[in-house]
Amino acid sequence: MIPILKNDRLLRALARRPVDATPVWLMRQAGRYLPEYRQIRARAGSFLRLCENPELACEVTLQPIDRFALDAAILFSDILTIPGAMGLGLTFAEGEGPRFAHPIRSADDVNRLGVPDPESDLGYVMDAIRLIRHELDARVPLIGFAGSPWTLATYMVEGGSSTDFRHIKAMMFQEPDLTHRLLTILTDAVIGYLRAQIHAGAQVVMVFDTWGGVLSTPDYRAFSLAYLHRIVAGIRGVPIILFTKGGGAWLEEMADTDCDAIGIDWTTDMGKARKRVGKKVVLQGNVDPCILYARPERIRQEVARVLGEFGRGTGHIFNLGHGIQPHVDPERVGVLVDAVHELSIPYHGSSGSAHGTASRT
Amino acid sequence: MIPILKNDRLLRALARRPVDATPVWLMRQAGRYLPEYRQIRARAGSFLRLCENPELACEVTLQPIDRFALDAAILFSDILTIPGAMGLGLTFAEGEGPRFAHPIRSADDVNRLGVPDPESDLGYVMDAIRLIRHELDARVPLIGFAGSPWTLATYMVEGGSSTDFRHIKAMMFQEPDLTHRLLTILTDAVIGYLRAQIHAGAQVVMVFDTWGGVLSTPDYRAFSLAYLHRIVAGIRGVPIILFTKGGGAWLEEMADTDCDAIGIDWTTDMGKARKRVGKKVVLQGNVDPCILYARPERIRQEVARVLGEFGRGTGHIFNLGHGIQPHVDPERVGVLVDAVHELSIPYHGSSGSAHGTASRT
Repeated sequence: MIPILKNDRLLRALARRPVDATPVWLMRQAGRYLPEYRQIRARAGSFLRLCENPELACEVTLQPIDRFALDAAILFSDILTIPGAMGLGLTFAEGEGPRFAHPIRSADDVNRLGVPDPESDLGYVMDAIRLIRHELDARVPLIGFAGSPWTLATYMVEGGSSTDFRHIKAMMFQEPDLTHRLLTILTDAVIGYLRAQIHAGAQVVMVFDTWGGVLSTPDYRAFSLAYLHRIVAGIRGVPIILFTKGGGAWLEEMADTDCDAIGIDWTTDMGKARKRVGKKVVLQGNVDPCILYARPERIRQEVARVLGEFGRGTGHIFNLGHGIQPHVDPERVGVLVDAVHELSIPYHGSSGSAHGTASRT
Repeated sequence: MIPILKNDRLLRALARRPVDATPVWLMRQAGRYLPEYRQIRARAGSFLRLCENPELACEVTLQPIDRFALDAAILFSDILTIPGAMGLGLTFAEGEGPRFAHPIRSADDVNRLGVPDPESDLGYVMDAIRLIRHELDARVPLIGFAGSPWTLATYMVEGGSSTDFRHIKAMMFQEPDLTHRLLTILTDAVIGYLRAQIHAGAQVVMVFDTWGGVLSTPDYRAFSLAYLHRIVAGIRGVPIILFTKGGGAWLEEMADTDCDAIGIDWTTDMGKARKRVGKKVVLQGNVDPCILYARPERIRQEVARVLGEFGRGTGHIFNLGHGIQPHVDPERVGVLVDAVHELSIPYHGSSGSAHGTASRT
């Protein structure tokens, strides 16, 4: 039995088919701003154990879907599952972000890396996806994801989060061949991981290139975009969304990968972005996540502004330009989601009624 | 006696007059990467005490001038001297960045703020400038600087450095009028401070809008650019350089302030930037500071690339796209500075001999 999606706005928008209202989902929609998330997180004991427990990961994935009129669910997980599975000793210290006990600094370190087997090494992710698909019961599509090779490499070489990226950039400038070897291994890992996620039930996949924006144009092309090209070429069967935070200068080149959609952050104008990419790709974004600290009227005003910038027609997926911050009041998230649906109706034709329409996936 | 500059490349480039070679200076050229700086810093006891001691500030300002063939000196100081003088209780914890004991969170906090008097409240900065001008002995021009109102506000409201900017953005979205009042006070303070620096001897001034790039276009216009306009209009007599890190999307609008030059970071292409701003402003930048971790040949290659992107003619000031990192080997800085001079000669006509030419300032 192929399930029929009850809400297929996201998939319709990704296919540039008419919709009744602009679909909306939010990066980190399952997360710390939700009290019900914090409860499960406490029960799990640690962030990593929450990611690794399919039942709990499923539960937190569905929490925002139960609470808000979101048009998609996104797998609750972390981009660092891949380097974790590579044996780098991943931990998340409370309030400090990720740390790798064994960062990658030398040719020997790179040579020791193997491409993880998704079903045996990351089976808990595939189990979570299968469970989420079952529990979602076709209410909305499920998005799977991975980090970009460049972004994963920054964490693996720095040993955690960074503000100056000095180790990975020193490697890039001093040993470009070694850096490319590392990125090639990661690209193979990401392709295998996303294929397995699709096989398990992910109906859309997204690649988070969180740190591509810290590169110059030639370095972005060589060390991030080239590998995004390979990933898009390696994925079949579901739409793929690419997101390079701070990548506003490279939208045309990102579209040339033949991805289906590009996520843009709030520093890029949605209207200008649409003019630049035309009908080649769908655009996802892009309000400042901090708008969720504003009062309801101001949130609605900002939603209206971004919808107006994109203008009429399909091909827009509403989202934040980055993840929801932990201190946000969940009620404001509801205000934003409802505002997108209500205020976007005039931008869609009467023929675009999609909500509730059957669509095979 | 008006001193005659022995090296006026920077001022010639800022005036779009021919030069023999592209002028170069480096953000944070006086700093922790230099062993002679670390020695003085240890003697001063703390970073703030180093800033507040005119003799020591003068000494570290001149250190890179003595060591490298730089075409400008920049006052050793910090953008947070203004909020420090406003009584917010500024401290720099070792390795942790700035902290304000009394961050700005309410209308009462804003109402209590006064505009500092540059000569009485920040006299140590003016004393340092006078001393540096004397000690520089007209070898190269001296650049003074201030933080942009928006950037200062981020530190004052967050209480220090931030990655999410949630307090300042919550204020901006919830209480725009209060935010504008704060920015207006800071704008008056910055204008008074820069005028006093010019009066004391600064021959160029630069405004660091380090955090303008975390705003959407409408928010950048309203909360940062509008105040940069007022600052440019309020400064007379010396060239003014504006630098919004991550501001590549707004170069045309920054040029419309009638500033003399715009600093760009490495995520913006120098060639594209030149096409966009034409002859309206000079461009400063823009190699990735991490290039200084590369081997000499790779550094020269990157210098050649950026010089080639700008192309022939005057109107380019070579710089990094952000400050020098503390772990850089000083010898690599010398490689970069010398490469700029050597490799830029072919881009300047034979009529452009400026080095050693007398010029009144």
